[in-house]
Amino acid sequence: MKTQVAIIGAGPSGLLLGQLLHRHGIDNVILERRSGEYVLSRIRAGVLEQGMVDLLREAGVGERMDAEGLTHGGFELAFENRRVRVDLAGLTGGKTVMVYGQTELTRDLMAARREAGATTLYQADDVQLHDVDGESPYVTFVKDGQRQTLACDYIAGCDGYHGVSRQTIPAERLKTFERTYPFGWLGVLSDTPPVSDELIYASHARGFALCSMRSARRSRYYVQVPEGEQLEAWSDARFWAELKARLPDDVAARLVTGPSIEKSIAPLRSFVAEPMRYGRLFLVGDAAHIVPPTGAKGLNLAASDVSTLYRIMLEVYREGRVELIERYSEICLRRVWKAVRFSWWMTANLHRFSDQEDFGRRIQQAELGYYTASRAGLTTIAENYVGLPYEAIE
Amino acid sequence: MKTQVAIIGAGPSGLLLGQLLHRHGIDNVILERRSGEYVLSRIRAGVLEQGMVDLLREAGVGERMDAEGLTHGGFELAFENRRVRVDLAGLTGGKTVMVYGQTELTRDLMAARREAGATTLYQADDVQLHDVDGESPYVTFVKDGQRQTLACDYIAGCDGYHGVSRQTIPAERLKTFERTYPFGWLGVLSDTPPVSDELIYASHARGFALCSMRSARRSRYYVQVPEGEQLEAWSDARFWAELKARLPDDVAARLVTGPSIEKSIAPLRSFVAEPMRYGRLFLVGDAAHIVPPTGAKGLNLAASDVSTLYRIMLEVYREGRVELIERYSEICLRRVWKAVRFSWWMTANLHRFSDQEDFGRRIQQAELGYYTASRAGLTTIAENYVGLPYEAIE
Repeated sequence: MKTQVAIIGAGPSGLLLGQLLHRHGIDNVILERRSGEYVLSRIRAGVLEQGMVDLLREAGVGERMDAEGLTHGGFELAFENRRVRVDLAGLTGGKTVMVYGQTELTRDLMAARREAGATTLYQADDVQLHDVDGESPYVTFVKDGQRQTLACDYIAGCDGYHGVSRQTIPAERLKTFERTYPFGWLGVLSDTPPVSDELIYASHARGFALCSMRSARRSRYYVQVPEGEQLEAWSDARFWAELKARLPDDVAARLVTGPSIEKSIAPLRSFVAEPMRYGRLFLVGDAAHIVPPTGAKGLNLAASDVSTLYRIMLEVYREGRVELIERYSEICLRRVWKAVRFSWWMTANLHRFSDQEDFGRRIQQAELGYYTASRAGLTTIAENYVGLPYEAIE
Repeated sequence: MKTQVAIIGAGPSGLLLGQLLHRHGIDNVILERRSGEYVLSRIRAGVLEQGMVDLLREAGVGERMDAEGLTHGGFELAFENRRVRVDLAGLTGGKTVMVYGQTELTRDLMAARREAGATTLYQADDVQLHDVDGESPYVTFVKDGQRQTLACDYIAGCDGYHGVSRQTIPAERLKTFERTYPFGWLGVLSDTPPVSDELIYASHARGFALCSMRSARRSRYYVQVPEGEQLEAWSDARFWAELKARLPDDVAARLVTGPSIEKSIAPLRSFVAEPMRYGRLFLVGDAAHIVPPTGAKGLNLAASDVSTLYRIMLEVYREGRVELIERYSEICLRRVWKAVRFSWWMTANLHRFSDQEDFGRRIQQAELGYYTASRAGLTTIAENYVGLPYEAIE
């Protein structure tokens, strides 16, 4: 089997890259270790930056998102029993974000790929990347008990933090940067109307809380929990009580609770691997970097990597500008570190740290106080939240 | 002896407060442990915020400052061998800072006080504050071998971190917040032309450096040194070589060096004591809070405390609004924490921390990269540097 670009991983970034390449006549094959149903079952992000929304439209998969997604012109920061609205549109000259669940997005991308007739091989086992630093890389994998070979020009590693792509790069060629946070997010999905039309990020002495939603009838709420917390310790009743305790009184009073339809704990981590390319292998999204979910940058950052790789591939195949390949990592990392910084800032300032001395706690409060009282401060939050501009390919 | 307001300490904040009160007919006496010559010999800050400049003019002591001080419409941040200008005036709607040495300022304030005929008692030993939580506080001290008593309505503690004022407040009534930084600033004063018309704050792998000045012919330079560093280890030659190594090449190339006329090492620390009032005793400036010098906020923060206390005293003596006394601490602390935050931010992002892991170092670089590339980011730096607005007395 042969293709131009082998894409490892059929999550949203692999699917989106495949779709963009396909529309410009660049042949690609996606290999995915799991089944399509499994991929759809992962409950993840739901806030899309303007740049990602534009990219999805460019890929021709924006129709249902535009019909069903919720455009958000702002969000709220809650602290000291009050709320301050970050007027995204007003502070950024009209930019907004789109609330549209990753599951729905993945469904749309899958449908588009089926319609395009492009190849996705699910349940491809034991994927191995070969000769990625040579002229003729190839991928081997086991499908239906048969080992197969996929020859290609380039490989896009869209297979996440635990995937084979980054692990294929010799350890001594990668430098990694990491910070773990001593807490996680306990998330609950429920078929209840969201407590607010906009997201609420709450800093409270008991810990961080987030009010989010998937649609006008489906809510997604989170509370910060200590590292190592057991899910079994959290009944629905305990979750709702804790959430209410961390919200401003007026918000807590109108919270509609209901049975959880999903409940899980996710750790928080910042991670970056450099460089993001090794030979003809490109790392995309979570394969190269992880951000804590505060600020909703993970999926969006994968999308900007996709945009960079897609535009470079167009230049390579149409104009023969192979020299751009060497610039992929540097172009991506400029924006990656800005998003890593913003995610770290949101995380550091909205959560309680059990080991934090009194001075650090007051600095947190001063940060929130200053940034929410200054138009310039609010603008820094807003322009990062809607997404900094994609870097140009030059 | 009797007065309305007893002021402890004849540094710039005590002198400025005394001058402002005196001009409005509020009698005051300043007690200072040291001699006037000693006070003048302390080499300190030299960058005055717009608000402090205005306050000095209001006190009638702005004449020489306006004639000899250097108005700065910007400063530079240097990193990665390049410089980014923070256009203070352009980013804040025309606000600037004034470079005018603390020594000169103190001299002007002393002269004004002499001219006004107001009492300053230098070399007042063993100052003790009494009954500060009662209706009739008084101060005792030893002058020329004689113990004397100064009865007063109120006491302003302008005697710095080590002074008697804060120590008079029962420890259980104060909450303190502190952070020490594992480094100091080695400063050199020299009669050489400044390397630049504007200040340069430099972040470098070898450590922080600052190019500052007192006048068009007198420079003040600093380099970050490890905690516990000995002054003897730093010859002039070593200092100049280290400073050059930390500056962008083009700046280093034009640095004019010369013999040091003063050389010293200062530790860096953040400290806040709350509340800033106990009975009829008000803490002003360094007596209540210390900031690291990065960002030049120490003297300016003392000036905003002076402004608050002076305006409250006017209301108390003219309008009988004694209830304002209870608001002094809260009004001051709002602005204090904002300046403490900014000083911490400048310090945390411009210095090298020996224990900093790679992730933290990259976050520093990302902070500098983001804030200097974003107009909103630059505006947050500029509006803090020129000084956030003084809080209203209500």
